[in-house]
Amino acid sequence: MSTENDQRNSGDRAWSERALIGALNRRFGPPPPGVILGIGDDCAALALEGPDYLLWTVDTLVEGVHFDLAFTSLEQLGWKALAVNLSDIAAMGGEPRYALLSLGWPPRRDRSQALSLADGLARAAREFGAAIIGGDTVASPVGLTLTVTLTGVVPAGQMVRRSGARPGDLVYVTGVLGEAAAGLEVLKRGLALDRDLREALVEAHLAPRPQLKAGRLLAREGLATAMIDVSDGVATDLSHLCQASSVGARIEAAAVPVSPRLKAAAPRLGLDPLRLALTGGEDYQLLFTSPPQAAPSLALAFSRAGLAPPRALGEITAAPGVLLVTAAGEQDISWQGYDHFRLDPAPEEI
Amino acid sequence: MSTENDQRNSGDRAWSERALIGALNRRFGPPPPGVILGIGDDCAALALEGPDYLLWTVDTLVEGVHFDLAFTSLEQLGWKALAVNLSDIAAMGGEPRYALLSLGWPPRRDRSQALSLADGLARAAREFGAAIIGGDTVASPVGLTLTVTLTGVVPAGQMVRRSGARPGDLVYVTGVLGEAAAGLEVLKRGLALDRDLREALVEAHLAPRPQLKAGRLLAREGLATAMIDVSDGVATDLSHLCQASSVGARIEAAAVPVSPRLKAAAPRLGLDPLRLALTGGEDYQLLFTSPPQAAPSLALAFSRAGLAPPRALGEITAAPGVLLVTAAGEQDISWQGYDHFRLDPAPEEI
Repeated sequence: MSTENDQRNSGDRAWSERALIGALNRRFGPPPPGVILGIGDDCAALALEGPDYLLWTVDTLVEGVHFDLAFTSLEQLGWKALAVNLSDIAAMGGEPRYALLSLGWPPRRDRSQALSLADGLARAAREFGAAIIGGDTVASPVGLTLTVTLTGVVPAGQMVRRSGARPGDLVYVTGVLGEAAAGLEVLKRGLALDRDLREALVEAHLAPRPQLKAGRLLAREGLATAMIDVSDGVATDLSHLCQASSVGARIEAAAVPVSPRLKAAAPRLGLDPLRLALTGGEDYQLLFTSPPQAAPSLALAFSRAGLAPPRALGEITAAPGVLLVTAAGEQDISWQGYDHFRLDPAPEEI
Repeated sequence: MSTENDQRNSGDRAWSERALIGALNRRFGPPPPGVILGIGDDCAALALEGPDYLLWTVDTLVEGVHFDLAFTSLEQLGWKALAVNLSDIAAMGGEPRYALLSLGWPPRRDRSQALSLADGLARAAREFGAAIIGGDTVASPVGLTLTVTLTGVVPAGQMVRRSGARPGDLVYVTGVLGEAAAGLEVLKRGLALDRDLREALVEAHLAPRPQLKAGRLLAREGLATAMIDVSDGVATDLSHLCQASSVGARIEAAAVPVSPRLKAAAPRLGLDPLRLALTGGEDYQLLFTSPPQAAPSLALAFSRAGLAPPRALGEITAAPGVLLVTAAGEQDISWQGYDHFRLDPAPEEI
């Protein structure tokens, strides 16, 4: 677990949220025996009887912060609320099990809309083999809030932590990056685009697909040394992984998977596609590390499972920091991307 | 599980919240095998390897709805956020284990206050043998929200559901009622009272003590046929218990435990102490049923454990409904008390 000083040193803009979590963590004290993983990974993991660990995660979505009901249906919101939690289970290599929903509902909002929200949750649960088994509802006059807490299981010997990356490992991502962030911008600005392009980007933002199949495959085959899901953007999430593993990383700009769709849309948004891909967030792809000698097994395993091949972005280094290598040289992009507590929401140029 | 029609028939004012939960529940479908208890009790219970059930609950507190920072310190709020979840574990007869915190924090609020909140959580965790092991934090510009999700364990054969009450069972409560509701009124009105009296009532509201010791004792000794914690007031919570057990209850007004403190404060508040005791809510005492022949064992077990004797309020009946017996006759008080979704917050006269 890092200290406040470590976090201050690794970039002032990122300090706030992580420092807050770290400071809270110290107040709570060290996890007791029986807790395999507490604060600091994608899930808490508890040792129980039997060969499996119970995985358990929680995420809150707040109206006006994480979603805007002007362009998000309640059904889409329900899907996404479960999907972001499923993505945390995927990032441990686990299988999802059960979820509780804690719903803060504005008393004067039409309650039939809550059923649409439940439909979205139920659809995501069905599709990914989870079940919503309880929860509570409270009045929330200031806006809709949704907290989903989800458990999962993973065979004890297969769980993939953030902390296992070693220098020389390759860094991979399971899919393209930045489309969700572009989709959000398209929605916020009401931007007219070619219809198929617009729909694909908007869908990337509103209906992310947790990479459970890839996560299980990597865990079962022992192919990943460390893993995290991309929720705050690769620059930040890779920084988390590197910090947990006491390593650094070098990412090659030319290797960052920027889709033709993102390349087509970014100029219309006046945004750099590479920046969107590295700092946009909410991709819910898996970012993982794997030894170079495992590359053939990795390629074969993904092919056999009918999954698109993972994209190599660069490699893990002994020196700390996350460096981006471009034709112009190297720059440190550690912790760039979304910070829930940054007061100035404008991302800086990279 | 009840239907919307059942709920409509049992009292219009109570329909909204329960109907919403019931309707959500139907969208989520029946719980899969392995879920011992899903929606509809104090906790979800999952069958795992070994002789224990994992208990798992979630509660959200919303600023302006569940707490007012004008008269609640962050430390008190932290205590209470865990206490209300611990009370759910107590109501199953379980022992608490691990908690996750999902904190919605207003970005411009002084973050050092979050440490006070953590102190309160940590103090409650220490006192009751729980541990906060993870969670997440999000920005919540519209106000502070706190979701705590807590697990616990209970030996599979000892778990106390809401659904086991039988006609003829006596109805008990573990302590006095209504002081928390009186304390809230004192705070809201800034009412000056004798200092000791004021502090005791305010403490009942701000620092409830979950009845884990009594809950475990009842479960271990097999003395309770059904149990629930008093969060929304006895009138409502006993209605939940009766509905789950397909029974009714008769409560004797003279037997409702109204403390000398409540009797002293109620006239100053212009409120009826009996009404506060039955509909006030947030007492976090345990309400349970027990066969009459178990009364001697119950009395002895509580004495031996150093616990105050439980108070008998009345008995379970085959006829549905919760009746209050007074010198003036009988009246149905089913579902009276706090409803999170009632638009008119004023409770009706009983």
